[in-house]
Amino acid sequence: MEIKLNSPLDMHLHLRDGEMLGLTVPSSSKTFSGALVMPNLTPPLTSASSVLEYSGRIKEHSSGDVFTPYMTLFFKNSYTREFLHDIKDKILAVKLYTAGATTNSEDGISLPIGDDTLEVIGMLEELGIPLSVHGETTGFVLERETEFAAAYDELASSFPKLKIVMEHITTTTLAELLGRRENLFATITLHHLLITLDDVIGGALSPHNFCKPVAKSPRDREALRHLALSAHPKVMFGSDSAPHPRDKKESCCGAAGIFHAPFALQLLATIFEGAGKLENLQGFVSDNARAIYDIDPPPKTVVLEKKPFTIPKTCGGVVPFLGGSTLEWSIKEVS
Amino acid sequence: MEIKLNSPLDMHLHLRDGEMLGLTVPSSSKTFSGALVMPNLTPPLTSASSVLEYSGRIKEHSSGDVFTPYMTLFFKNSYTREFLHDIKDKILAVKLYTAGATTNSEDGISLPIGDDTLEVIGMLEELGIPLSVHGETTGFVLERETEFAAAYDELASSFPKLKIVMEHITTTTLAELLGRRENLFATITLHHLLITLDDVIGGALSPHNFCKPVAKSPRDREALRHLALSAHPKVMFGSDSAPHPRDKKESCCGAAGIFHAPFALQLLATIFEGAGKLENLQGFVSDNARAIYDIDPPPKTVVLEKKPFTIPKTCGGVVPFLGGSTLEWSIKEVS
Repeated sequence: MEIKLNSPLDMHLHLRDGEMLGLTVPSSSKTFSGALVMPNLTPPLTSASSVLEYSGRIKEHSSGDVFTPYMTLFFKNSYTREFLHDIKDKILAVKLYTAGATTNSEDGISLPIGDDTLEVIGMLEELGIPLSVHGETTGFVLERETEFAAAYDELASSFPKLKIVMEHITTTTLAELLGRRENLFATITLHHLLITLDDVIGGALSPHNFCKPVAKSPRDREALRHLALSAHPKVMFGSDSAPHPRDKKESCCGAAGIFHAPFALQLLATIFEGAGKLENLQGFVSDNARAIYDIDPPPKTVVLEKKPFTIPKTCGGVVPFLGGSTLEWSIKEVS
Repeated sequence: MEIKLNSPLDMHLHLRDGEMLGLTVPSSSKTFSGALVMPNLTPPLTSASSVLEYSGRIKEHSSGDVFTPYMTLFFKNSYTREFLHDIKDKILAVKLYTAGATTNSEDGISLPIGDDTLEVIGMLEELGIPLSVHGETTGFVLERETEFAAAYDELASSFPKLKIVMEHITTTTLAELLGRRENLFATITLHHLLITLDDVIGGALSPHNFCKPVAKSPRDREALRHLALSAHPKVMFGSDSAPHPRDKKESCCGAAGIFHAPFALQLLATIFEGAGKLENLQGFVSDNARAIYDIDPPPKTVVLEKKPFTIPKTCGGVVPFLGGSTLEWSIKEVS
């Protein structure tokens, strides 16, 4: 059995910087046609020059591949209309973080959302720049996303022409909210289709399954699977692939993040075929994103075949998601 | 400020075996007058000889201290009335584990509780041997204890003369159940009075705060604090102190268990005084257990004083709970 994917897209990706680019960029550029690149570096990407330079460094590492890094800008309350107008053509979205919600998000906005933040969001609506949001409060870990739902609802209602992407949703609450506001969209990761909190803390502690937002309950996972496997038109694949060296994961204070970009398509094919929904994979992994972001990614054809593939136990010092496991699908050809 | 404790008791303790006894036994025997010792060794304690030999090894390591190890027997469906009758004087309780619920519990009973299990429980009631229970299903990690509540309720109602101790309770569900059945009692650990799931997975991943049952929500913690700080007469202190070497915690598959026995009284004094309930510490840490188990532990007086004490960062290869933190209370004198 085979499946042909046209221009697969990863609409939520962490490529890190420096030496790590040698691992992360080829991991995605070999099989994806494009990816939305997150801006939470240290320091975060908040200027045209930092976005352009980072984009340049990414392109150096993907030089042999057909691959478009769609860039994002780290949301700041201090942005002016002129600045956003000038940078508009260099980015696909502005990414808003709540302060302290995840890796390198210290410079994010504080809650409740203030007037200065709303003013900048108004400029994005006016300029037609989508807003990508890491929507979590800093409350109890299992309630953070649910507590943010009201903010999503309010933003969607206050800025009806703004496209708002709820990133890496993990709960039934946000899965339901998606249907209630026309201008709300969502990305769903790969790991949240597979794991629950049981896979993190249910048996032995599993640092390599630890990510933010943390995986939730089986019921939550089911809601995400329903959206993804049906290729709900408001939902896109966003891997949130985020590598950390093994010693930063297996430590007294393990870093949050799961790495699976090089095996994402093989994993997705295994999940979708397992659920008898292989025909919806093209929508989830490409078509929906093209429609939502109005993009035309470079042509790239990935042929997957049903043939066992074993995920390596380690990739350049990083332990990948499900390392050592054998999947049912392999990449046959990329052209 | 000082407080004098008479014969403090730890009614849920893991002493391990072999070399580890050199760390665990003195950690408890120096300051506690007695402790209920858990039987989940490899293999578990299921015979009179294994209980007596283990008790002997413990006493070798506590030889300089006034300390009674109250022994437990690992529940098996195959026990006969004669066996239980003969072993009765050597143990304080029989400990029931559900299979797979925690470390070395593979030989525990399966759910729902079967007739063979109920038959043995009936013998315990008849012989007046308390039943200590690790009450968790093998369901979703956050629901395991709550799902077991019905079994507690049924056991308490079916065996009204049996004393049933719900070990290391962590949820409002069991805190509430405690008041509904006369023959239900509970132990509460130290760490569940302090941490929530936020301290395990809310920031970086914290393997040294990882235990079973996992810490729950702030609301659950509040229910436990209410019971403990008021020295509710059906509640006893049970540390569940359970050391693992650092490399077994900071690994790809971290072991569950928190170690704090040597600092338990200093920590408890800090918690109780912080809540303005220092007068209830004697009840929680000794008097309630004496009444519930009808025991008369050896006399031992521990004087604590309000003077800073810093928990070491490591104890014989084990990272203790809150290692490196400074507490407000120290041990002044033990006699």
